[in-house]
Amino acid sequence: MSQTSPAVPKPADKFTFGLWTVGWTGNDPFGVPTRAALDPVEAVHRLAELGAYGITFHDNDLVPFGAPASERELILKRFRAALEETGLKVPMVTTNLFSHPVFKDGGFTSNDRSVRRFGLAKVLRNIDLAAELGAETFVMWGGREGSEYDGSKDLNAALNRYREGVDTAAAYIKEKGYGLRIALEPKPNEPRGDILLPTVGHGLAFIAQLEHGDIVGLNPETGHEQMAGLNFTHGIAQALWAGKLFHIDLNGQRGIKYDQDLVFGHGDLTSAFFTVDLLENGFPGGGPRYEGPRHFDYKPSRTDGYDGVWASAAANMRMYLLLKERAAAFRADAEVQEALSTSGVFELSEPTLAAGETTADLLADASAFEDFDADKAAERSYAFVRLNQLALEHLLGAR
Amino acid sequence: MSQTSPAVPKPADKFTFGLWTVGWTGNDPFGVPTRAALDPVEAVHRLAELGAYGITFHDNDLVPFGAPASERELILKRFRAALEETGLKVPMVTTNLFSHPVFKDGGFTSNDRSVRRFGLAKVLRNIDLAAELGAETFVMWGGREGSEYDGSKDLNAALNRYREGVDTAAAYIKEKGYGLRIALEPKPNEPRGDILLPTVGHGLAFIAQLEHGDIVGLNPETGHEQMAGLNFTHGIAQALWAGKLFHIDLNGQRGIKYDQDLVFGHGDLTSAFFTVDLLENGFPGGGPRYEGPRHFDYKPSRTDGYDGVWASAAANMRMYLLLKERAAAFRADAEVQEALSTSGVFELSEPTLAAGETTADLLADASAFEDFDADKAAERSYAFVRLNQLALEHLLGAR
Amino acid sequence: MSQTSPAVPKPADKFTFGLWTVGWTGNDPFGVPTRAALDPVEAVHRLAELGAYGITFHDNDLVPFGAPASERELILKRFRAALEETGLKVPMVTTNLFSHPVFKDGGFTSNDRSVRRFGLAKVLRNIDLAAELGAETFVMWGGREGSEYDGSKDLNAALNRYREGVDTAAAYIKEKGYGLRIALEPKPNEPRGDILLPTVGHGLAFIAQLEHGDIVGLNPETGHEQMAGLNFTHGIAQALWAGKLFHIDLNGQRGIKYDQDLVFGHGDLTSAFFTVDLLENGFPGGGPRYEGPRHFDYKPSRTDGYDGVWASAAANMRMYLLLKERAAAFRADAEVQEALSTSGVFELSEPTLAAGETTADLLADASAFEDFDADKAAERSYAFVRLNQLALEHLLGAR
Amino acid sequence: MSQTSPAVPKPADKFTFGLWTVGWTGNDPFGVPTRAALDPVEAVHRLAELGAYGITFHDNDLVPFGAPASERELILKRFRAALEETGLKVPMVTTNLFSHPVFKDGGFTSNDRSVRRFGLAKVLRNIDLAAELGAETFVMWGGREGSEYDGSKDLNAALNRYREGVDTAAAYIKEKGYGLRIALEPKPNEPRGDILLPTVGHGLAFIAQLEHGDIVGLNPETGHEQMAGLNFTHGIAQALWAGKLFHIDLNGQRGIKYDQDLVFGHGDLTSAFFTVDLLENGFPGGGPRYEGPRHFDYKPSRTDGYDGVWASAAANMRMYLLLKERAAAFRADAEVQEALSTSGVFELSEPTLAAGETTADLLADASAFEDFDADKAAERSYAFVRLNQLALEHLLGAR
Repeated sequence: MSQTSPAVPKPADKFTFGLWTVGWTGNDPFGVPTRAALDPVEAVHRLAELGAYGITFHDNDLVPFGAPASERELILKRFRAALEETGLKVPMVTTNLFSHPVFKDGGFTSNDRSVRRFGLAKVLRNIDLAAELGAETFVMWGGREGSEYDGSKDLNAALNRYREGVDTAAAYIKEKGYGLRIALEPKPNEPRGDILLPTVGHGLAFIAQLEHGDIVGLNPETGHEQMAGLNFTHGIAQALWAGKLFHIDLNGQRGIKYDQDLVFGHGDLTSAFFTVDLLENGFPGGGPRYEGPRHFDYKPSRTDGYDGVWASAAANMRMYLLLKERAAAFRADAEVQEALSTSGVFELSEPTLAAGETTADLLADASAFEDFDADKAAERSYAFVRLNQLALEHLLGAR
Repeated sequence: MSQTSPAVPKPADKFTFGLWTVGWTGNDPFGVPTRAALDPVEAVHRLAELGAYGITFHDNDLVPFGAPASERELILKRFRAALEETGLKVPMVTTNLFSHPVFKDGGFTSNDRSVRRFGLAKVLRNIDLAAELGAETFVMWGGREGSEYDGSKDLNAALNRYREGVDTAAAYIKEKGYGLRIALEPKPNEPRGDILLPTVGHGLAFIAQLEHGDIVGLNPETGHEQMAGLNFTHGIAQALWAGKLFHIDLNGQRGIKYDQDLVFGHGDLTSAFFTVDLLENGFPGGGPRYEGPRHFDYKPSRTDGYDGVWASAAANMRMYLLLKERAAAFRADAEVQEALSTSGVFELSEPTLAAGETTADLLADASAFEDFDADKAAERSYAFVRLNQLALEHLLGAR
Repeated sequence: MSQTSPAVPKPADKFTFGLWTVGWTGNDPFGVPTRAALDPVEAVHRLAELGAYGITFHDNDLVPFGAPASERELILKRFRAALEETGLKVPMVTTNLFSHPVFKDGGFTSNDRSVRRFGLAKVLRNIDLAAELGAETFVMWGGREGSEYDGSKDLNAALNRYREGVDTAAAYIKEKGYGLRIALEPKPNEPRGDILLPTVGHGLAFIAQLEHGDIVGLNPETGHEQMAGLNFTHGIAQALWAGKLFHIDLNGQRGIKYDQDLVFGHGDLTSAFFTVDLLENGFPGGGPRYEGPRHFDYKPSRTDGYDGVWASAAANMRMYLLLKERAAAFRADAEVQEALSTSGVFELSEPTLAAGETTADLLADASAFEDFDADKAAERSYAFVRLNQLALEHLLGAR
Repeated sequence: MSQTSPAVPKPADKFTFGLWTVGWTGNDPFGVPTRAALDPVEAVHRLAELGAYGITFHDNDLVPFGAPASERELILKRFRAALEETGLKVPMVTTNLFSHPVFKDGGFTSNDRSVRRFGLAKVLRNIDLAAELGAETFVMWGGREGSEYDGSKDLNAALNRYREGVDTAAAYIKEKGYGLRIALEPKPNEPRGDILLPTVGHGLAFIAQLEHGDIVGLNPETGHEQMAGLNFTHGIAQALWAGKLFHIDLNGQRGIKYDQDLVFGHGDLTSAFFTVDLLENGFPGGGPRYEGPRHFDYKPSRTDGYDGVWASAAANMRMYLLLKERAAAFRADAEVQEALSTSGVFELSEPTLAAGETTADLLADASAFEDFDADKAAERSYAFVRLNQLALEHLLGAR
């Protein structure tokens, strides 16, 4: 599409797509589908042709809810054949605990115990499938775990049941010896008024209370954090810092409103630039890195036909590669490095206390407090606007 | 003020106020103060007369930044005398790492190491004062720890420095044998574009990475969570569940906008009802309880004179007591208990797996999955609207 | 339900409900219906039993899209019989230009002219039905008139087409001599990323550009304004001031997020109190009043069965009546009247210039400027917090 | 700064800056100024050197509140000399009715009539100054016209007083024969909980009720609309459509939160691209154009020294010029033109009714309704994602 095009997407880029993304037919709260259903096998072929690395799915994206075993086997056989033919991987599998009316009050935290048991059994069965298909990550989005009214949920009991559900699934993975890790996906609201584990922070905090938290991490989604007005790059940074960025859902959102699931980069473009900069180039002073798939969890616009479905799938990857190219140039620019230094960005890696320095030492160091000239120190210009301008000019391809 | 008034506020209610709340003189981004400064000693007397239990402060609310030791001693002496005279306690102290220009890029996470050292020394000194005054909680609100531009902060380094700062302070408390616990106060933004540890969840997650996290918990503020569109009662519930609700800041906020710091109950009234219901009556099925002060962190409206300052201080306590009364009636209402039961609220306390049941047992239980009639189970009406209507009628005093 | 119950709902209260409200079966972006379809005739009977005054509908709530004339007639005949039997009125009718895929880019402003013609013809036909059923108001919610991407819509052309559509419909009403007025319903987003005429203000501004704007006003919806963080009572006040509050949609929303359509009063309760106070008691200093139906545009929670549907329908009316009772007591309270006076609320009705005073007079009046002691005038305490506390105590039934 | 730089800013670009922007010293709700005050004369010189066209100000940015006439004259004389020396224009002047405590409840709509008279007199005097300095636009931002509590303001009276104030000022301009037009600046909240005329729409609707509305239009600000989650480009489009875009305030905002006043383009970059595209290239199908100054109303980051102040001033202009360059390329790209056509963007300019076609004709046209194949028409792919991707690639400089 461009004269200055970066390399076309290729499997080594590890781009993956949910079957439910290109397969979304366009139903929304005020309208019915605008596109015919997509054959999962066609999705495999088309995504492979576009250069994707893998495809992911909810159990019921592939096998209808309640389908008999025979139908299930036929579907899986056909799907596996397409995977083999194309070389597409299934790095992640997830469970649908939200579409069927039985889950209207949640799966793991439904007030109805029989629903919780059904939900948990559904998850365990799906873990078997995920392992069988060679997935490395098992995502859990608890979209129905929540409430509209504060009185309708015992929140302590709900968190206990949520923990029970996740710990039971994690223990099952360990017991079976599967090479799977669980990744929880936070979201603040929609379809529930308030969803449990609404942000990356709440998800990380929850994991810290698990018995089997060692194999449980997060799958943050760009738009979900932005629906709470939070900075997505800050969110994944804290997840990385905690060693818990197990998977990532990239997409686009334009502010605090309903869940838009736009193409990655078609939401907050500047934020997308810094997200890619972090994923590709790491923290300026080094630290933990993300090595997993770049997974797109988006919806092709309902106004578009299948031409738009495939154009939008390609757009996700192209946006990522363009941003990757610009982020690399940003880091490689000597003026940027100088500006980072002027702004003290590298200085933050230096511990506040010197090696071996105690609090007594610090308190005894008059230069740190008694003799510290706060007014003078306050004069330092961090020159952050200049640094940001440099970043934006790289983003605009203007340097 | 009312014919159906609950008991007037008394120290046993454990209502506390920040010195900076009644002492706020009305400066805002577009205007200068509208009220003269308030003498802290007068604040002590007035709050005691109104029935408060305690007063809290930032170091520089009481002692001006950079005041010489002699002035500091005189101020503290006078303040202590007022406390003794009135019986008012100082259950919490906190440090101002945000007003002086030296902290313009943060205290613990400023890109400038000399600022970090100054900030840390300031905190350690203030811990001594907090201990000396008998405080139990040492709050840390890192309002300047953040950024406007993603490129201006190495987020991994920032979280490392933040951890270093908090762990150093906590270790100091332990070393000195002080009876203090640290409570971090999350906030999503303002005065920085994005603040580190933006929500209750991020704060809890951060604590889980500390070396001395056992004496570090949270001080959630009503309006701060609501500035991210999050459910405050859900937030404090997760903090309680994690054993980390060490302190609480009650106030009012009307939606996602600038930090309003209205009187408690003058923001989202329904949410305030459920907050008080949780604080006073606990989770429906039992669980961890909050026993600390009911601390109001609000601002008397800038349009009001000192009559309005004291009226608003009283209004915080009166709103709390009115809500407490209504929450008690809500729980005591037999129809409410029946509705809670119909809605399955108590049922959520029952573990999903039976005692001793394994995942193998669950998978072998055909009634849980193969023979489970999902369509039939989906017919259950949770009747949540009826339950909420009952709650609102109690809130309105209409039952 | 209560010992202190206000009168039960009765037709004179003019409560009306959309057929699509009690008839919503629970489909949402992540789930399929949880309730069976509701027979419109049953809706008529149940609402009449509950004390409603009327029922409203979109053409396709009653008659399926594309139904042959014969089917249409049978349906209408049966529906009319139910209306006659129960005495329920149809004060408002509206057109569905959003559910069918053909409207995926809008009705009046679709980029496709054939769709615009189809939409306009659909509206004209529905105006005939509305007139025939004796409706007074014809609502237009342009939910699909908008875009996700700024480049996809020529906004000047879109507003021209929108004007053409509304003016054509209004001219048709006049030409036919129907006793109908059009009421536009603003909404900021969902199901489109940005909807044209996003707020009450934009709707009023649009009407001012119409040729037949005299019979075009607004139908503001509580939650829609609140989805933009705007004050609903302020919005309807400006519509009243402009003589354009033709109809109203009451419901509940909990902050800036997806469109929740909760029961009225189950969203922002304090705002609902002031909305009812304005609708029932008017502005403190007099002025234009709203006399139309109190129309509820809400969705019964998806977690509830039909017990919850009817309980929630009743809850809307009960909340309104409780708030009406409390608002009346608020206005009748002598202390409130005194507080309103102290706060200067009545003083605002006095013109700033004296009768006959010119700008030259004002500039010559030294007491207004040169000799005006601004510092002294600034000392006035408006005592707004006290006034708000009085309002809240009435809301809580505590006075 | 860049190898691919567009022309440097020059007066013909009509870039203007508020004196209060580069002169902001950094006070915020939680901190005191971080920069020393700026001499207005220095601001004039520095902005002229950077290539600006003009400077704007509030009366009290230049002349302190309450300064005696002699001081005022000296200040103005010095300021005029600097203007003459540099050639900088003063195309806009505005009045500060918000900083002094006397305005704590508003200027034109304060509940205190003496304040309203003072405010109005202050405005009239400032109109004289604006005219004398050759300004064309007189901005009115009613930042304090609003309330925190719905009960504290009679909204009908407030709108009457607001109208009285604006109409009086407009009549005065006409009477004096000044070449000035008034431009109202909407904002949803901050510093008041809710501000009257919260959005572009509400401002336009208000103007339609004025007696002298012919010389009253709007001054929309990027961040103010975005604080309500609204699309800024949509807002200015509706203002243009109504013939009321009299002035514009460009800046940056990152979502729904406090008023950030970032550099233009440092907020929502994609939105900024489409704003510039509209300002520079007009609507795709033609229509009203904006010809006034490109006014930046931003705040240099508080973390930066004066190096950052001037770097940020330059950054505003550079961002605008870069976006202008990219928007021009976008429109000139043949593939974009083809994509616009495919998406039906030009088709929207065609009236829905044919020339001379009546509603009777439309209803008689079976092809429009009875024979219209809605399912078939629904299959049209608007291909909006492809069009947006083309826009983004131009924005990224990737085509």
